[in-house]
Amino acid sequence: MIGIAVVGYGYWGPNLVRNIAEIPGLDLVSVCDLDRDRLTGMQARYPTVEITDNFDEILGDSRIRAVAIATPVFSHFQLAMKALMAGKHVFVEKPMASSSDEARRMVEEAARRRLVLAVDHTFIHTGAVRKMREIADSGLGDVYYYDSVRVNLGLFQHDVSVIWDLAVHDLSIMDYVLREKPVAVSATGMSHVAGEPENIAYLTLFFDSKLIAHVHVNWLAPVKVRRTLIGGSNRMIVYDDLEPSEKIKVYDKGITLNGNPQRNGEKIHQMLVGYRTGDMYAPRLDRTEALARELTQFMECIESGNRPIADGNAGLRVVRVLEAATQSLAWRGRIVELEPARLIA
Amino acid sequence: MIGIAVVGYGYWGPNLVRNIAEIPGLDLVSVCDLDRDRLTGMQARYPTVEITDNFDEILGDSRIRAVAIATPVFSHFQLAMKALMAGKHVFVEKPMASSSDEARRMVEEAARRRLVLAVDHTFIHTGAVRKMREIADSGLGDVYYYDSVRVNLGLFQHDVSVIWDLAVHDLSIMDYVLREKPVAVSATGMSHVAGEPENIAYLTLFFDSKLIAHVHVNWLAPVKVRRTLIGGSNRMIVYDDLEPSEKIKVYDKGITLNGNPQRNGEKIHQMLVGYRTGDMYAPRLDRTEALARELTQFMECIESGNRPIADGNAGLRVVRVLEAATQSLAWRGRIVELEPARLIA
Amino acid sequence: MIGIAVVGYGYWGPNLVRNIAEIPGLDLVSVCDLDRDRLTGMQARYPTVEITDNFDEILGDSRIRAVAIATPVFSHFQLAMKALMAGKHVFVEKPMASSSDEARRMVEEAARRRLVLAVDHTFIHTGAVRKMREIADSGLGDVYYYDSVRVNLGLFQHDVSVIWDLAVHDLSIMDYVLREKPVAVSATGMSHVAGEPENIAYLTLFFDSKLIAHVHVNWLAPVKVRRTLIGGSNRMIVYDDLEPSEKIKVYDKGITLNGNPQRNGEKIHQMLVGYRTGDMYAPRLDRTEALARELTQFMECIESGNRPIADGNAGLRVVRVLEAATQSLAWRGRIVELEPARLIA
Amino acid sequence: MIGIAVVGYGYWGPNLVRNIAEIPGLDLVSVCDLDRDRLTGMQARYPTVEITDNFDEILGDSRIRAVAIATPVFSHFQLAMKALMAGKHVFVEKPMASSSDEARRMVEEAARRRLVLAVDHTFIHTGAVRKMREIADSGLGDVYYYDSVRVNLGLFQHDVSVIWDLAVHDLSIMDYVLREKPVAVSATGMSHVAGEPENIAYLTLFFDSKLIAHVHVNWLAPVKVRRTLIGGSNRMIVYDDLEPSEKIKVYDKGITLNGNPQRNGEKIHQMLVGYRTGDMYAPRLDRTEALARELTQFMECIESGNRPIADGNAGLRVVRVLEAATQSLAWRGRIVELEPARLIA
Repeated sequence: MIGIAVVGYGYWGPNLVRNIAEIPGLDLVSVCDLDRDRLTGMQARYPTVEITDNFDEILGDSRIRAVAIATPVFSHFQLAMKALMAGKHVFVEKPMASSSDEARRMVEEAARRRLVLAVDHTFIHTGAVRKMREIADSGLGDVYYYDSVRVNLGLFQHDVSVIWDLAVHDLSIMDYVLREKPVAVSATGMSHVAGEPENIAYLTLFFDSKLIAHVHVNWLAPVKVRRTLIGGSNRMIVYDDLEPSEKIKVYDKGITLNGNPQRNGEKIHQMLVGYRTGDMYAPRLDRTEALARELTQFMECIESGNRPIADGNAGLRVVRVLEAATQSLAWRGRIVELEPARLIA
Repeated sequence: MIGIAVVGYGYWGPNLVRNIAEIPGLDLVSVCDLDRDRLTGMQARYPTVEITDNFDEILGDSRIRAVAIATPVFSHFQLAMKALMAGKHVFVEKPMASSSDEARRMVEEAARRRLVLAVDHTFIHTGAVRKMREIADSGLGDVYYYDSVRVNLGLFQHDVSVIWDLAVHDLSIMDYVLREKPVAVSATGMSHVAGEPENIAYLTLFFDSKLIAHVHVNWLAPVKVRRTLIGGSNRMIVYDDLEPSEKIKVYDKGITLNGNPQRNGEKIHQMLVGYRTGDMYAPRLDRTEALARELTQFMECIESGNRPIADGNAGLRVVRVLEAATQSLAWRGRIVELEPARLIA
Repeated sequence: MIGIAVVGYGYWGPNLVRNIAEIPGLDLVSVCDLDRDRLTGMQARYPTVEITDNFDEILGDSRIRAVAIATPVFSHFQLAMKALMAGKHVFVEKPMASSSDEARRMVEEAARRRLVLAVDHTFIHTGAVRKMREIADSGLGDVYYYDSVRVNLGLFQHDVSVIWDLAVHDLSIMDYVLREKPVAVSATGMSHVAGEPENIAYLTLFFDSKLIAHVHVNWLAPVKVRRTLIGGSNRMIVYDDLEPSEKIKVYDKGITLNGNPQRNGEKIHQMLVGYRTGDMYAPRLDRTEALARELTQFMECIESGNRPIADGNAGLRVVRVLEAATQSLAWRGRIVELEPARLIA
Repeated sequence: MIGIAVVGYGYWGPNLVRNIAEIPGLDLVSVCDLDRDRLTGMQARYPTVEITDNFDEILGDSRIRAVAIATPVFSHFQLAMKALMAGKHVFVEKPMASSSDEARRMVEEAARRRLVLAVDHTFIHTGAVRKMREIADSGLGDVYYYDSVRVNLGLFQHDVSVIWDLAVHDLSIMDYVLREKPVAVSATGMSHVAGEPENIAYLTLFFDSKLIAHVHVNWLAPVKVRRTLIGGSNRMIVYDDLEPSEKIKVYDKGITLNGNPQRNGEKIHQMLVGYRTGDMYAPRLDRTEALARELTQFMECIESGNRPIADGNAGLRVVRVLEAATQSLAWRGRIVELEPARLIA
């Protein structure tokens, strides 16, 4: 049994508590939140779990070997660093930190102490996204584009822009599904509330190959959309997370290129690009709750010393794109290069 | 009766011929195409219409007062200029020309000769788009964003990119529906076929206000999407052109801003931004064929001397954005300013 | 505070417990189930609530003034009668009883003792169904038809047919939304598992007017459908319960009848029936949880002596149709009349 | 070349003319309609085709070996019989005749004279329906049910009810897709316009096996629906004819029956019925125009002496169900048996 504490009991913390309580190898020792009122209802349901508003108690408790952090983004760095320095394994909400410098220091600290640092990129543990990766690995061919729309009439946040709130999901999914990593980003967007961060944004990601990725995020849309298109040379995917059962549709569609004939006019061109349309299928998806898989994996990594799928480097890669996108957005789309050398091997 | 000739009988020409033949005040005198084979089937159906492969015959025919040009884009300028110089009114396919210089010279020539120059921005004559403009004028409030997706597995073109082929529709609709004109554009995109123009592109348009517009066009999508979201301070619109009947949905949704209280923390913020959700309605739309309305209006402008809704300046504005977007795309998103002074009053 | 007990803690019981626990005027005294294991988890969450597997304890407990029964259908009559005879108010799951005789005796017993007898026709307390009734009362005109499809790959039940399991929802909604009551029923269906009750069924209900109603229920459908069409002389409704937000759409559509001219041929006929198409709108719906509204109303009726919206007579009307449909189904569609005289005023 | 005449140039005649004109082996000699005005536009397009308002001219023209009849239903019998007696092969619109007696006499006359009698069951020649038959033959397992909804705000007809107008499509598809033939029918419905035939109807068809079929047709629906569910023991189909590309979806879903254990209670039962959910796929469909395939097949049958897929017997089977449904409808759902002996081998 691995003793674990949850820090932060706001929007996401209850999900952590519920899942940890049901995983056999984890022992939920304590839950910490500055607002003790939030913890009262929790304890009625889980009477054996201790509560505290003092993070240092967590740090000093030798029963607690791991900490799951679900506080606001700005506090991730400080809390995670303290936990790592106290020898605790860390599971931290996404985005992992407020800046790539913070994220890098967290990665370095965990590496130095040989502790597990997992970032809660929840979506990559869903049946839908795992199936997408499987297809991207085996059947898509060359990946041409990744296009995602994630919009709704949402909870405006006042400390981070819509990029850090919503695009982080798409960036973490892309980081998992695509083999290539982005090398540059161009972003545009707008704030419609004076003094507040951007509530609508568009990100384009460039890669070394011909792959292009784009993310549209918006807190001010009349309808909810969660739709990703992935185009490959052999197949294409539509991933609609709002579909109750057929979230992933795989289309046997595409273009065929017939060599490279001399171009003398339109007819030659028509020979060059042909269209192919075949069956569509919607594979059955594993319906295990993503967070349960993820926490189980975190536990196994603590025991085995393996790295989690979304380790600190994955979290760092995502934060670096968020950071670059924020910079590009301020410059109304000017490209910002992502320096690969700054990643920690 | 106004004598008219159609030049170009490829993809769109037959629609022009069919509509002109049914408009009482127009007399379809002649149809011209370099490929006489195309014209044979046409003449079987319209036996009184003359055919020719010689554009000069059209220019020299005094019965012909107007010319409708439906040839490839690169030839619009030359054909339209000759027609204007021969004293003919001109109705030209979109995009109006291959460059803003060409477009400007067409506008100047028509103005000098007091001839009607209409650009076939077909969509703005549909019931759906006219209803959008009506709502944008009266009920939306401040327009926050205009977001359009126009993707499908489409006919790759080898002379123009997907921007000139598909985004032209959105730019012409925006030019008509929105009161503001864009001042700068950032575009990204990619070509996935060696030696061919971009088949996927993303355009962001900036305005003097907080309005932001975005267009996603793609010839390589597994599904067909034609969907526009317009967000306003009072209402929001979803325009789905693939819906058989309810193409326009108007949502009484939005955020409410409660003054500008001092921000001491989250609770104050929650007071600042509120959410409003009311009824949705889908207004009944006029189903008149757009092209019939448009050609009738062209005819009336010839008779009255009025300007058509999509006159040469509208065509020029759209071409200028296409041109700037193409430039920005080559620079991977760097902003390109649109100089308002170059427009012809 | 009204003391209340919940009897039966299977599929629906937990919803009753959760809602009762949150309604200020209700005091959840005890929960009863034959299977004590089910009750353990409940008590961890609601430590002050007593548990028992002995219904007689409930009957003899003077703190308990009302009983909510959520056991299998066959036991409703016996449990409810005992509760009424012990002077308890009763809230009973739908269908109210296994036969109209049972239901009638329950109604009579409650009337004799001046106790509240409420039937849990949950759907009629949803925002969607309440809005439908409002529209049916004011804007539909003459109601021509009510057509509902309620199908999915569902939990086969072995004691009741799909009619008693699924059509009961539609019959209770109809009973609430339509002013007229059915006078006869024709039903067809089939069982595809040997020895089991029907898993697919079709009900037609006739009324004294030209109104016709139809319900399609199916446990063996590949997709889930919850869709009702209501056609009126002035407007029509589509109610899709699976739509996340726009569950109710009201269409300003219909036919217009132009007097009754002599019919000499097709042209005259075309004048007779015209088509009218106007706007569609989707009204905003109240999102209060139906069961919370319903239980609050039950409480108020106990205090005031008023009748609940779904009283015993409503439950009886629904059971009578279920009974008649079952009979008709056995006769492959032969009409079964519903005798109005048997209803209790 | 087989000379052919089209009789009736109203709603459907123009489709026959257009397709016949493009099939190499068919020579469209003449088109006949009582209303000569309708024929004028046709002749402008097909100048070599003769026109007449005198059916006897068709009968007496030795160049004409086949007649395609697209007149109102009541006239099919008389026109087809005259044509057969004049030695012409006949292609007749659906429904084949106004009564099964008429239909039978047509079948007998064609058999006696060894002439081809084809009924225009257009849908069975679509890629979607042919694919359904292929799947029904190979992958569905035992077919449990066939359920179709075909509703819209439609053209009210004054000579036939909605059954003869819309259900005829479903009956002809069923006749082709299902191996079994119905043995009895129960129908309900209603007319909402005084003096007019039923505008809404529900048909249940019974078979010798456990298969049950149901059709809902309605001229007075606010939305257009064209959706069929087919449930089999191995797979299930959703056929949505309004889907632009994925009209057929095949679901690997169903129930599994685990022997026939003694039933001692709920737990045993849960073992009895299990649920199975696998992939869904949407096969690519042939997009050939149905009518072109059908007329080509008619031509080949004339040449080879083979029977068309929808021969007179198929037409007769459909008319017999229409007739029985009409009778059952008058009796508000009472079952009407279909006598198999009356079919012509």
